[in-house]
Amino acid sequence: MLIVGELINTSRKAVKEAVLARDAAFITELARKQAEAGATYLDVNCGTMLKDEKDSMEWLVDVVSRAVDTPLCIDSPDPFVLDAGLALCGNGQPMINSATLEAARYQTVVPLALKYGAKLVALCISDQGMPEHVDDRAAIADELISRLVKDGVHIGDIYIDPLIKPISADITQGRDVLEAVRRIMTGNPGVHTICGLTNISFDLPERMQVNSAFMLQAMACGMDSYIIDITNRKIAAAMLAGSAIMGHDRFCRKYIKGYRSGIFA
Amino acid sequence: MLIVGELINTSRKAVKEAVLARDAAFITELARKQAEAGATYLDVNCGTMLKDEKDSMEWLVDVVSRAVDTPLCIDSPDPFVLDAGLALCGNGQPMINSATLEAARYQTVVPLALKYGAKLVALCISDQGMPEHVDDRAAIADELISRLVKDGVHIGDIYIDPLIKPISADITQGRDVLEAVRRIMTGNPGVHTICGLTNISFDLPERMQVNSAFMLQAMACGMDSYIIDITNRKIAAAMLAGSAIMGHDRFCRKYIKGYRSGIFA
Repeated sequence: MLIVGELINTSRKAVKEAVLARDAAFITELARKQAEAGATYLDVNCGTMLKDEKDSMEWLVDVVSRAVDTPLCIDSPDPFVLDAGLALCGNGQPMINSATLEAARYQTVVPLALKYGAKLVALCISDQGMPEHVDDRAAIADELISRLVKDGVHIGDIYIDPLIKPISADITQGRDVLEAVRRIMTGNPGVHTICGLTNISFDLPERMQVNSAFMLQAMACGMDSYIIDITNRKIAAAMLAGSAIMGHDRFCRKYIKGYRSGIFA
Repeated sequence: MLIVGELINTSRKAVKEAVLARDAAFITELARKQAEAGATYLDVNCGTMLKDEKDSMEWLVDVVSRAVDTPLCIDSPDPFVLDAGLALCGNGQPMINSATLEAARYQTVVPLALKYGAKLVALCISDQGMPEHVDDRAAIADELISRLVKDGVHIGDIYIDPLIKPISADITQGRDVLEAVRRIMTGNPGVHTICGLTNISFDLPERMQVNSAFMLQAMACGMDSYIIDITNRKIAAAMLAGSAIMGHDRFCRKYIKGYRSGIFA
């Protein structure tokens, strides 16, 4: 299970303030906390720093790389910022968040994945827009995978994000994504699927309840990677229980260790 | 989603005492509490009343039938007790828990399902014993379904229990059961799958965490029926969130109603 810690993101007020103040201690602590909680990658996103995104990214990557040994997931809408961040990544194979099937985005981001030998999050969006249901999600995913592989990205470095939409707006979206994940994973052996959890529960109360349920259900459909707040106890506990049920936790050792660490308290 | 409330079971100390004392108020309250929490069937099991099981069953069925409108799931290892309980069921189509593929059990229980037009829980056990992995689980299920249908049970009245074993003893058991559920549901359109949740987490701490995770994962694999303690808030909240994600809760109304009722508190 690949777990991308999502907390280093300047859309969060405290992180933005820390980045503005170049408060390395705050970012270091946030990186360490996520790594200790089980993050296997750390997302770094300063997309809200409109005029200063490249400098902020370089500073963040430097601070996070020193703080932990965990590899980084460089997350930006801007290919130049991605390039700048990737150039400084020091903790093993980096990850890029994200390419899409949109021509402009594909052509600028995929070369960076090849240049840096990076893992690549590829979001199911094409120039025709966002998918509505199972068939178009799976079709975009299939086209993304076959193009990426043809262009030289190893299938094991591709992380397809099926594009999560809120069930509050359309009750078929949860079921459709789960079915798409199953199709993508069974139809493309070796590929990975990944997603963030926040969209699914948009506009609902007690969102963590829906987020953790969706994570478990996606896991049962083959999803093997998540962009989450692994420091959240509800998410972490669900991840431990779900991973054990899926057979990824020999003798349930991690689950029992999590229990002893007080994660379920 | 079919939800069988599991609490009226004399293996629970307080229930046994209530049955011994013929305390109708206690049983009435337990029946109502489960029905209010969303149980669509109520399991009635007094299998621990070794010398008095038939009389206890008759008394329980009478009390529960008066307490609520919810139909009953008559649960006993003894076909005579099943018959006695079924004869008194007054709240719509009853359910029987359970038949197996074992010759003696099959031959005594299946005629009761036909006699009473009951839904039937059919457990994946044969005279060759309990299944170990995916293939034998699915094979026993397929044989059970084809025999039951041939013998006159409507496929929509068949609830296959894939037989849940603890992941603490064998870490492959969770994954195998999930895969078996998917195979049974896709290979036999119209059939149902059902299970209790307690075995999966045997010998682990914080069992509700594993139980609710397993319920959500089984749901994503097509399981549509559960024998659970729906009065448990953790289970009820997971059921509401999972059902909404699976598309069974138009406009997320039940989820939001559950939130307003304080179920997530």
